[in-house]
Amino acid sequence: MTTTGVHPLRELLPEGSVFDDVDVLEAHRRDRATFCPAGTPSVLVRARSTEDVATTLRWADEHRVPVVPQGARSGLSGGANAVDGCVLLSVEKMDRILDIDVDEQLAVVQPGVVNGVLAARAAERGLFYPPDPGSRSVSTIGGNVATNAGGMCCVKYGVTGDFVRELEVVLADGRVMRTGRRTAKGVAGYDLARLIVGSEGTLGVVTEVTVALRPASARPLTAVAFFPTVADAAGTVAGYLGEGYRPSVLEFMDEPTVRCVQRVADLGFPDGTAGMLIAQSDRGDAAPDDLAAFERVARSFRATEVVVADDPVEGEMLMQARRLIGDSQEHLGALLIDDVCVPRGRLVDLVTGLERIAEEQRVQVLCAGHAGDGNMHPVVAFDADDPDESARAQRAFDDIMALGLELGGTITGEHGVGHLKRRWLGRELDPAALWAQRQIKNALDPHGILNPGRVLPDG
Amino acid sequence: MTTTGVHPLRELLPEGSVFDDVDVLEAHRRDRATFCPAGTPSVLVRARSTEDVATTLRWADEHRVPVVPQGARSGLSGGANAVDGCVLLSVEKMDRILDIDVDEQLAVVQPGVVNGVLAARAAERGLFYPPDPGSRSVSTIGGNVATNAGGMCCVKYGVTGDFVRELEVVLADGRVMRTGRRTAKGVAGYDLARLIVGSEGTLGVVTEVTVALRPASARPLTAVAFFPTVADAAGTVAGYLGEGYRPSVLEFMDEPTVRCVQRVADLGFPDGTAGMLIAQSDRGDAAPDDLAAFERVARSFRATEVVVADDPVEGEMLMQARRLIGDSQEHLGALLIDDVCVPRGRLVDLVTGLERIAEEQRVQVLCAGHAGDGNMHPVVAFDADDPDESARAQRAFDDIMALGLELGGTITGEHGVGHLKRRWLGRELDPAALWAQRQIKNALDPHGILNPGRVLPDG
Repeated sequence: MTTTGVHPLRELLPEGSVFDDVDVLEAHRRDRATFCPAGTPSVLVRARSTEDVATTLRWADEHRVPVVPQGARSGLSGGANAVDGCVLLSVEKMDRILDIDVDEQLAVVQPGVVNGVLAARAAERGLFYPPDPGSRSVSTIGGNVATNAGGMCCVKYGVTGDFVRELEVVLADGRVMRTGRRTAKGVAGYDLARLIVGSEGTLGVVTEVTVALRPASARPLTAVAFFPTVADAAGTVAGYLGEGYRPSVLEFMDEPTVRCVQRVADLGFPDGTAGMLIAQSDRGDAAPDDLAAFERVARSFRATEVVVADDPVEGEMLMQARRLIGDSQEHLGALLIDDVCVPRGRLVDLVTGLERIAEEQRVQVLCAGHAGDGNMHPVVAFDADDPDESARAQRAFDDIMALGLELGGTITGEHGVGHLKRRWLGRELDPAALWAQRQIKNALDPHGILNPGRVLPDG
Repeated sequence: MTTTGVHPLRELLPEGSVFDDVDVLEAHRRDRATFCPAGTPSVLVRARSTEDVATTLRWADEHRVPVVPQGARSGLSGGANAVDGCVLLSVEKMDRILDIDVDEQLAVVQPGVVNGVLAARAAERGLFYPPDPGSRSVSTIGGNVATNAGGMCCVKYGVTGDFVRELEVVLADGRVMRTGRRTAKGVAGYDLARLIVGSEGTLGVVTEVTVALRPASARPLTAVAFFPTVADAAGTVAGYLGEGYRPSVLEFMDEPTVRCVQRVADLGFPDGTAGMLIAQSDRGDAAPDDLAAFERVARSFRATEVVVADDPVEGEMLMQARRLIGDSQEHLGALLIDDVCVPRGRLVDLVTGLERIAEEQRVQVLCAGHAGDGNMHPVVAFDADDPDESARAQRAFDDIMALGLELGGTITGEHGVGHLKRRWLGRELDPAALWAQRQIKNALDPHGILNPGRVLPDG
């Protein structure tokens, strides 16, 4: 398993699939998580078929070599970072859309298909693939399945797992399993497809995904509301949803987040505003009523201004600005990106708690996110060259997770546990649940070769 | 473990929880599946708390005594039938609604709460619990979770599992696990809640369920369409959904089924009609357009008559008639009730295939079901006192499952595997999936005490 000499997988896999050049390995060591350790891989396999994946795993299981599955490496929790001596098993080149079945409203894709590409191809056929993680222009369906990725649509349409019908999965010892089904319903045996979804490459490697599509929705109408305090914005979210409205998007940005985005796109953010909400409705003729109700609720929470976009293009520009959040914050320094999710009635407590944490740890904490789901993205910005500030940033990050749990929420709404939140999993799950998770991991991967050190804490 | 003497569980459980009277045991030996074997239980435990369930399982696991969990025993696959020497563990008396949280749109219930009771209590608070199995007036949420129960709503709203947020589950050795979460999203660890859903009491006993509720929908409008052939009705289903409509109900009944229902309620079924569809839309102002489109598609498939109910009451009466199907067929003799689910584009092949099977095996096969999901309920009616006809009925039942698989479907869309379809599970699942299912069962229930002989085939 050294990087010199001929790697044994070269004998087993098609030519051009196995790479042990130091530069190539270095370029594939990490996903987009900051401050997660990355080890030194022994080899990179670029699988082009299920058989390549099965061959790799069979060999690795026999020789007890760790395997780290990779897609676009756009994850935010270190789940695709190398571990020492591992095989990096990339399915990025398995990127074909195998079928879009218009009559059954299904798509069958390889794991390396980019989310946005699938969505665009589906749209060309009059269909809609809702899950829309912020990374959708680069992240792949395989990675979306591995993390049960969310996005802005979830408040109305649900997460990746809600659209997965059938999976082909290569298990740790190289067995190829099909699980789930193409039909709308089915209860034949345990729901292994749903178990694999969100398992972050620790239970198997997904090599084919059948997803449900929906009929295209009407082009959404958009409204924005500006608030004097973040608590008013949070109160509007709970109030509006509590009245029974189901917006297709309900996003929050606080003032520091907006200030970043304003550097690259104008959101028309009035002075003296602490936060804003973006709401959309895609219910066609009913959309104006939905947004009128949003305006009414927002004004009851002291909104200083509410603007309903006259035409869909304006709304789409606003959404594009929303998607710039990540890039627009890079100048702030190092960033720790969180994704706690709380009951929406506790959003007010979350945003006010973030202010307290920022003060206590003397770091900047920005906050935006999928407010309609209570799934927020607090971002701790700090100077990584300052050891004291870095330590305070890490404490703030921990405090945010503690706050999420204290409010009846979860440490991760959509990014996954990976390496980043592994220490915290044992604080969220009770001992029986942790035991059950370990039993399942051991049952399906008895030699522990699949993405070791991810998700489940040691011990 | 005899039924004489004092059962050891009497010492461990509260007074009045343990029953070994022969009559009581006899009355609890079976669910509603026909032709499934039922063994002789040693004792019935009526749990009133999570602690009672944990105590029972701890004792049973230590003494290697099989445990069969029971709710309302309204299941149709023998999953709640006694096995010899077992503890029947009933959670029917754990029937409290612990909370309906209007702001978060959640309900927290004990497993013995009847589905219809939860739905009614939610409706009183302006909320909607969609999963509506045919048995909803008697079946319990615990049983609904155990089988991932469906119903008529699924075509638009999904199945029980789509509404489960958090579960309290007692594992085989008595450990109490909470899994899932109250929040809308969450990816902290494997999705064990979804693994427990549909596991039919073989992985744990559910003692508390948190379900998502929805805002109340508009009162639905209803249309019925009558067709000269069942194939025309099936074609209408695929055609209407293929155009992107999402009815809240889309049910099919063939002529023999309607004839049974007509004995107890008038469906206004015209002569010379081979089948009918019932469609509903609950989209308020958009409902008339939805049903006009349904009429257009139905007429393009030679519908002889399409009636749109003028007011919601008329529609509700029609749905009540639909719910009488089960009772209305009792006079036909013994019944084998199937629940295959096929891609909706193959419904035509399913219904024509059923006609062939009925002819070949010389038995009557009626068919109704949730056509919008491709989830049909073919019913084989036969004289159980005639051994030859009984054998042919059993062959017809098997042929129906084979047909479902051949059409790319599943042997069970919503009733579960239980005992009834266990032999067939190995024909639906591939060897790797079957292996993975067995590994999980062994990992969570190493002594195999939980509902042995159900779901997974021997071997």
